[in-house]
Amino acid sequence: MQSILTSSYAVHFNHEAYKTLNKHLSRSNYSKIFVLVDENTHEHCLPIFMAQIDGEYDFEIIEIEAGEINKNIHTCTQVWEVLSELNADRKSVLVNLGGGVITDLGGFVASTFKRGIDFINVPTTLLSMVDASIGGKTGVDLGALKNQIGVINQPEMVLVITDFLKTLHERQLQSGYAEMLKHGLIQDIKYWNRLNTIRNFDKLDQEIYDSIVIKNKVVLEDPTEQNLRKILNYGHTLGHAIESYFLDSEDDELLLHGEAIAIGMVLETYLSHKLMGLSLNDMHAIKTAFVKRYGKKDISKNDIDNILPLLKFDKKNSHGEVNFVLLKTIGMPVIDVTVPSDLLKEAFAYYAE
Amino acid sequence: MQSILTSSYAVHFNHEAYKTLNKHLSRSNYSKIFVLVDENTHEHCLPIFMAQIDGEYDFEIIEIEAGEINKNIHTCTQVWEVLSELNADRKSVLVNLGGGVITDLGGFVASTFKRGIDFINVPTTLLSMVDASIGGKTGVDLGALKNQIGVINQPEMVLVITDFLKTLHERQLQSGYAEMLKHGLIQDIKYWNRLNTIRNFDKLDQEIYDSIVIKNKVVLEDPTEQNLRKILNYGHTLGHAIESYFLDSEDDELLLHGEAIAIGMVLETYLSHKLMGLSLNDMHAIKTAFVKRYGKKDISKNDIDNILPLLKFDKKNSHGEVNFVLLKTIGMPVIDVTVPSDLLKEAFAYYAE
Repeated sequence: MQSILTSSYAVHFNHEAYKTLNKHLSRSNYSKIFVLVDENTHEHCLPIFMAQIDGEYDFEIIEIEAGEINKNIHTCTQVWEVLSELNADRKSVLVNLGGGVITDLGGFVASTFKRGIDFINVPTTLLSMVDASIGGKTGVDLGALKNQIGVINQPEMVLVITDFLKTLHERQLQSGYAEMLKHGLIQDIKYWNRLNTIRNFDKLDQEIYDSIVIKNKVVLEDPTEQNLRKILNYGHTLGHAIESYFLDSEDDELLLHGEAIAIGMVLETYLSHKLMGLSLNDMHAIKTAFVKRYGKKDISKNDIDNILPLLKFDKKNSHGEVNFVLLKTIGMPVIDVTVPSDLLKEAFAYYAE
Repeated sequence: MQSILTSSYAVHFNHEAYKTLNKHLSRSNYSKIFVLVDENTHEHCLPIFMAQIDGEYDFEIIEIEAGEINKNIHTCTQVWEVLSELNADRKSVLVNLGGGVITDLGGFVASTFKRGIDFINVPTTLLSMVDASIGGKTGVDLGALKNQIGVINQPEMVLVITDFLKTLHERQLQSGYAEMLKHGLIQDIKYWNRLNTIRNFDKLDQEIYDSIVIKNKVVLEDPTEQNLRKILNYGHTLGHAIESYFLDSEDDELLLHGEAIAIGMVLETYLSHKLMGLSLNDMHAIKTAFVKRYGKKDISKNDIDNILPLLKFDKKNSHGEVNFVLLKTIGMPVIDVTVPSDLLKEAFAYYAE
């Protein structure tokens, strides 16, 4: 597959990815190569990855605990300290081998260590392949608030190796698929329709490629999120609040990012119908597609009362207003829509019915 | 005094500074204005500063504890949390009113909060006026290691209000003066000679201005510290190690940044004589100037044995080598010099004799 060019680096795929990495390492004269993993990618992905590296380099493996709950400043401090102890310098490189927690946190750690060292992202989950591979967003959570601390900074390259998807459970694949469905909803009704026909995830290479192309096109047009790029937040305003709430709650069953975003998209589809004229048919079709794939989560009145106040922490807000991305039609989003608060509760009722 | 233009913002002085700030605030439509202070600038500088603000804005004051010992990620987390609680959003601005700890830490906090909000630096110490006002370095310490975590990011503007110097003790003024002496040593022998004639710090406006011009010229030529900018680290390779060591030690008497750098400059002047042909006369003249101003600190053999290993954390290093900036003559520095380790001990002996 052809590499995808962003404004400052390229996303390389599979065989080509390893070839480009080997060329880059042999040319870069890095003082040391650090690889950030969690216990899962350490066991399942690192051996596959290392087997493809030609030549002898000074490697150090840094393992952190898996899970969104560890995507925080405390974990960053641990990684910064290990980098210091292992004599990382400005000519070192950090390879982030893992899902979104690893690439977001690792990108932030590298961007801030000695005011910035090189990093390379190797996403191993479907979610991080289609979402974190473009856009240069790095960061960590602050308490329950998602991605409150971070910077925009670009990796040297992103390597998408779809073989890693075989190491994932069905539920993790579905979580990533939610972001792909979002790319369809905000930009391309044909892509949305095609994705809805797919039940078997064995051969997703082309769909992953298409998703990255869509996201890249949006980010290239508006790198600093002044306007167009905000459309990528479809489903995320309520989705993030829901994810934050359940991350912090006593609820036993953790909600994955894509699962929270899927709920957010159903809710924001209702708002789109009410405020932007999205047709009743499309609204129902979107809800049906998501509920079929993700089931329905019980969200109590008490849950909702705790979720809604979290909207005020959304990074798109300013001057105390919550700004939503909504849909006019599938493929045609509108940004910066303010939503009356009674409609928000109606949206939850629609989701539940 | 005329404003000094950097690559992306301007440094404004005194009356002009307040005028420009008021114009900026009235145009920017910030959702909220946060002012970061420590207990000293809260008491002594904030009332002076606030009295000059025209118009009604939504201000929030955030106070952190004074001192280099608090320039760490823990303090950042506290400030991030307060910003969140007080509903800071991407259209908020952070005004950093204080010395280098406040401007370095506040710059980092702003650069990483929701992936970056505006910030304005108002240095209140001589050190931060002549050093932190140019270059965009933000950051905090990691344990005893100085400025290990940070980013390069530029403020909206820097306001140098020399009235604030009246709130400082003589010792703090002398600490800042060390960076001005450094600017002389690395770029301008006439400026160095002029600074050495000054004992009374009542009217330093012109000297501060000249120092900022020198630093700005260097940073404009090499913003990313590939080569020329490294000269600003004169005295800092050993100076930072000394500062880190005494910050972390049981030593009762805390060493100020400029005091540590002054020792570093004497040591690196010895290395310059030994390796770069700096004349014996100049070496003695430089040592005499610094010792006259700063006295001499007792540094034991045990201290030295603990200071030297810290050199490996210097941010200029790569591939395990410690890189020094040395002087050929006053005003003519050389970068990337590797120094044999026995010379380092000799340098301490020269300082002590």
